[in-house]
Amino acid sequence: MLFKYSIKTNSREEMIDITSYVEESVKKANVKEGVVVVFTPHTTSAITINENADPSVRRDIIAFLKDKIPRDYPFTHIEGNSDAHIKSSTFGCSLTVIITNGKLLLGTWQGIYFCEFDGPRHRNFYVKVIEG
Amino acid sequence: MLFKYSIKTNSREEMIDITSYVEESVKKANVKEGVVVVFTPHTTSAITINENADPSVRRDIIAFLKDKIPRDYPFTHIEGNSDAHIKSSTFGCSLTVIITNGKLLLGTWQGIYFCEFDGPRHRNFYVKVIEG
Amino acid sequence: MLFKYSIKTNSREEMIDITSYVEESVKKANVKEGVVVVFTPHTTSAITINENADPSVRRDIIAFLKDKIPRDYPFTHIEGNSDAHIKSSTFGCSLTVIITNGKLLLGTWQGIYFCEFDGPRHRNFYVKVIEG
Repeated sequence: MLFKYSIKTNSREEMIDITSYVEESVKKANVKEGVVVVFTPHTTSAITINENADPSVRRDIIAFLKDKIPRDYPFTHIEGNSDAHIKSSTFGCSLTVIITNGKLLLGTWQGIYFCEFDGPRHRNFYVKVIEG
Repeated sequence: MLFKYSIKTNSREEMIDITSYVEESVKKANVKEGVVVVFTPHTTSAITINENADPSVRRDIIAFLKDKIPRDYPFTHIEGNSDAHIKSSTFGCSLTVIITNGKLLLGTWQGIYFCEFDGPRHRNFYVKVIEG
Repeated sequence: MLFKYSIKTNSREEMIDITSYVEESVKKANVKEGVVVVFTPHTTSAITINENADPSVRRDIIAFLKDKIPRDYPFTHIEGNSDAHIKSSTFGCSLTVIITNGKLLLGTWQGIYFCEFDGPRHRNFYVKVIEG
């Protein structure tokens, strides 16, 4: 089963916790054992898993990427967002998570994040639940 | 169903659009709903999704990686391509895309790219289509 | 079928070859055609594929990451391991590999690695085998 969600990002670079959307998809699909693929159709965004406890981890990730993959690097692309495209391929636009006993098999400190690197934007992402 | 494709890269670092190969695989497999896994068996290459409109984005990505993960860094591996191995793990050798209505669920500006970081080479990649 | 494995890492940053565990899972599941998802539930670790021949490649990868994503960067997260969280999202916590003829479809020089960036630790990882 395939689900589509819409979110709004509020700053240029942001990591938004979308774990609850993915959990909801698994529940609605009523799949007990399988995998779920989370996918963003936007080339300045990414899907990743990282720590869900202390928000300073996300702040550190965003700040570090901003410093090391800077927007004002001498890029040629005239839209001025090549840094965001590079961050997208670095973290990846597709993520696969295991489902068991009807639940996402995540570690205690893992959350699933939609990362936007050229916002603020209205964005979509897809969740595909596969039994198997 | 599993498909194997061969391509030729023309410079040391290159991103080749392989979206049409992946689309062809999905069509031949005649799968309407499912996922497709694109995989490179070479450790100096990667599979990624990025912008397919302005070619300057790919040029910026390649140039930035070349600058920040330089070939002439004091690596110990005698083949002199450790930079390419690092780029490979950074972008990843495996990519999963959703299929719906018999088509790849890609965003308007998304293309699938085979990235070679230690070419020119003759390379293969695999496309696995899964119904579900 | 789902398998869980436990390993021990011995230094802060380490890449451990887990290919044999993944091969064992595929054999036990007795799946001839499909895919396998390898997943780490820890946010300072990653799963990647890279060269399995010359160990200097892994040493170069670890040393380069240590240099470019340093632990002593002015991060705010008080645990002092934000570098490890960034490395985790860069390499990714989930990896999908194709199965054909009952075997992993890996290139000659490819090995699957569990990467820990904030060890030494006792760690688990999961292997999900899917027929299709």
